[in-house]
Amino acid sequence: MVAPLKVGIAGLGTVGAEVVRLIEEQSRVLSARSGRGVKVVAVTARSKAKKRGVNLRGIEWAKSPLALANDPNVHCFVELMGGAGDPALSAIEAALKSGKSVVTANKALIAKHGSKLAALAEKHGGALNYEAAVGAAIPVVKTLREGLAGTTINRVYGILNGTCNYILTRMEEEGLSFAECLKDAQRLGYAEANPSFDVDGHDTAQKLAILASLAFGTKVAQSSVYVEGISSIAPADLRAAQDLGYRVKLLGVAVRTASGIEQRVHPTMVPRSSSIAQVMGVTNAVTIDGEGIPPITLVGPGAGGAATASAVIADIADVARGIRAKPFGRPIEKLRTTKKAPMERHEGGYYIRLMARDLAGTAATIATRLAEQKISIESIVQRHPNGTIDGPDAKSKSSPVPVILITYATSEDAVRRALAAVQADKVITGRPQVIRIEKN
Amino acid sequence: MVAPLKVGIAGLGTVGAEVVRLIEEQSRVLSARSGRGVKVVAVTARSKAKKRGVNLRGIEWAKSPLALANDPNVHCFVELMGGAGDPALSAIEAALKSGKSVVTANKALIAKHGSKLAALAEKHGGALNYEAAVGAAIPVVKTLREGLAGTTINRVYGILNGTCNYILTRMEEEGLSFAECLKDAQRLGYAEANPSFDVDGHDTAQKLAILASLAFGTKVAQSSVYVEGISSIAPADLRAAQDLGYRVKLLGVAVRTASGIEQRVHPTMVPRSSSIAQVMGVTNAVTIDGEGIPPITLVGPGAGGAATASAVIADIADVARGIRAKPFGRPIEKLRTTKKAPMERHEGGYYIRLMARDLAGTAATIATRLAEQKISIESIVQRHPNGTIDGPDAKSKSSPVPVILITYATSEDAVRRALAAVQADKVITGRPQVIRIEKN
Repeated sequence: MVAPLKVGIAGLGTVGAEVVRLIEEQSRVLSARSGRGVKVVAVTARSKAKKRGVNLRGIEWAKSPLALANDPNVHCFVELMGGAGDPALSAIEAALKSGKSVVTANKALIAKHGSKLAALAEKHGGALNYEAAVGAAIPVVKTLREGLAGTTINRVYGILNGTCNYILTRMEEEGLSFAECLKDAQRLGYAEANPSFDVDGHDTAQKLAILASLAFGTKVAQSSVYVEGISSIAPADLRAAQDLGYRVKLLGVAVRTASGIEQRVHPTMVPRSSSIAQVMGVTNAVTIDGEGIPPITLVGPGAGGAATASAVIADIADVARGIRAKPFGRPIEKLRTTKKAPMERHEGGYYIRLMARDLAGTAATIATRLAEQKISIESIVQRHPNGTIDGPDAKSKSSPVPVILITYATSEDAVRRALAAVQADKVITGRPQVIRIEKN
Repeated sequence: MVAPLKVGIAGLGTVGAEVVRLIEEQSRVLSARSGRGVKVVAVTARSKAKKRGVNLRGIEWAKSPLALANDPNVHCFVELMGGAGDPALSAIEAALKSGKSVVTANKALIAKHGSKLAALAEKHGGALNYEAAVGAAIPVVKTLREGLAGTTINRVYGILNGTCNYILTRMEEEGLSFAECLKDAQRLGYAEANPSFDVDGHDTAQKLAILASLAFGTKVAQSSVYVEGISSIAPADLRAAQDLGYRVKLLGVAVRTASGIEQRVHPTMVPRSSSIAQVMGVTNAVTIDGEGIPPITLVGPGAGGAATASAVIADIADVARGIRAKPFGRPIEKLRTTKKAPMERHEGGYYIRLMARDLAGTAATIATRLAEQKISIESIVQRHPNGTIDGPDAKSKSSPVPVILITYATSEDAVRRALAAVQADKVITGRPQVIRIEKN
């Protein structure tokens, strides 16, 4: 029997404590599965005194993450502190430089410094595993990195943030406003006190950048991601989506286009019958479109201590088994620099909701402005405040009336120009609501 | 650069030809991903003359699968002939005995001889990869074998046969009979001329036995699987399911119980809101319940040349990368012999549909017989032939009237005894329809 894999863990929050507990509890199975024992030999965290409900006896306490990363007794450095910079970054660099393998759940760090760290891992022979960084226990990194090794991937998209999906689900099911649902999500611990990172789409963007790199063999390029959050979504949009056979989800979408790799995060209308539309509450899901094969969708918990720990342990087991996958599936020198497809060039269908001042003339004006940009309209309906839907020729009202349009595939640029013209015509009040449609 | 991995392929049907084509087409990506080239050096199939639309120039034609398996020029033997016995079995045994790695899509063979072949692979140091055998391109084998290495799995279940799911979907959506849908499925090539292997549940049972072994660390035990097919399902059952908030799916379910590992294949009522209920048409899906974490569901194509080839290529890439996972996740000597949980001990809710001769007295008789077996009834409704539902006290009719019961959790044994008593009472006509309920 090979000597056990000696693991050092930096960060003992919910996930870190659960990893320590699971390695102890599952030690027999882990050693059977990986062909060698796995043993936590050292840990570190901000406070040594804090109660964590986990037995740390016989485990060394390192004085800092960096000290732990440099400890020659540690073979595998597990980083569960989070944060896109130090101390996580320096510690991981030190561990990789000494030939150690690294397991991390840190999406911010991988999204920002993934290429640099992968190069270190490849140079010094260690693994850099980060399954937990995207979709927690959903094995999406492994699937893209290994499970679809011979398949050309054309698109990868998903619900990558449980907070947003929880809010959209509650809004739809209970007809509540974004603000009300956000408050509830905060009360229940599904959203942070400062919710911007989640609801404005940045968390999704980091995860998407990682998935895009794995899917397309490109360098992680978080700054190339177009990002819109969900705070502008109104109950009226969700009702209209339902009437039109769609559901609204915050999606991260990465797709191969003629003008480069398009990476975008925005509220999206998805067909109600699609797998992704069925994903409700805090659950995450990723769909992968491979060349010539029907889509593969992976659904599961995208957060939570036990789910995240499950992915961390699987990554540690791969290290123990001696697997040294290239961190991004291909050697770092073969990863291409992403050619960013500009958002203006995005092509697809659009849902547009406008508040018409005076319906009689407005429908004609809108139709004209769209026609000028060669945008074809699939449907145009107006919705009375009481919730019924009429055709565009219904009687006008004194108060503004919502007009909802669905376009056939067109370009972002054309939509923006048409709506700017409609606004200049002063036939609508407020800002137009625009939600992109993603077909499955 | 390491010398390329030399692959020999036995069987050049749709999948085999697609594998040859993909290895050629993807050679640059494959070599970047696996760190070494992958090259098809030899093939064999029943007919050398047959047109396959794939370029075999420069590839040696072996005179038999066994000759190919013994060819010292071949590192990795890919078996795509199918069949639980020879020539596949002998050829795979020969390849493994000579230390070669083996990739196969052959579920029948793995379900029947998996343990024996895994022992050979482990003894001689080759890999035995069979991702394509279950759920084609859905990476379920890899997920169970590697992605959940540190997670205790309590249940794994899924829709593992596209033919059955296609038939049930059409029956539900169009109100057609089983026989009509089967005929259509045969016409469209979704079902074989002899459909028994699919519709009677045997295909699902083979795949389930493989998943159960991976999930629970037990020896594959196909003979321990309880099997029921879908031919008895009537449109009336699907309508009742809809009214009651369920959908009927042919599931393979493997679950850890107090009396051992329960493995069963049968039509199942699943909650309409569950991920598995949303899976329509020929699509497959597998749900994995890990200890302490919400379910993970993988959805995708369960058959088809390109989807199956995608999994075969991923398996070959793992061989090229030098990964030698234990075929069933743990060393063969650590796999336990499945303690078969007898079906009579199965516990769960039941859907029961009976044709009552004379409604007035029948409801009381049925209720009494169920009470004698301590079965609690969640709901009892009768359905008039015109499709409306009434409570049990509605007026009796001269022709038999369907009575539909949903029970709370009880045992298979109790249900069987209660229904035998009801039949002996002669208050119903025909055989009772019984469909087990699986909660998510």
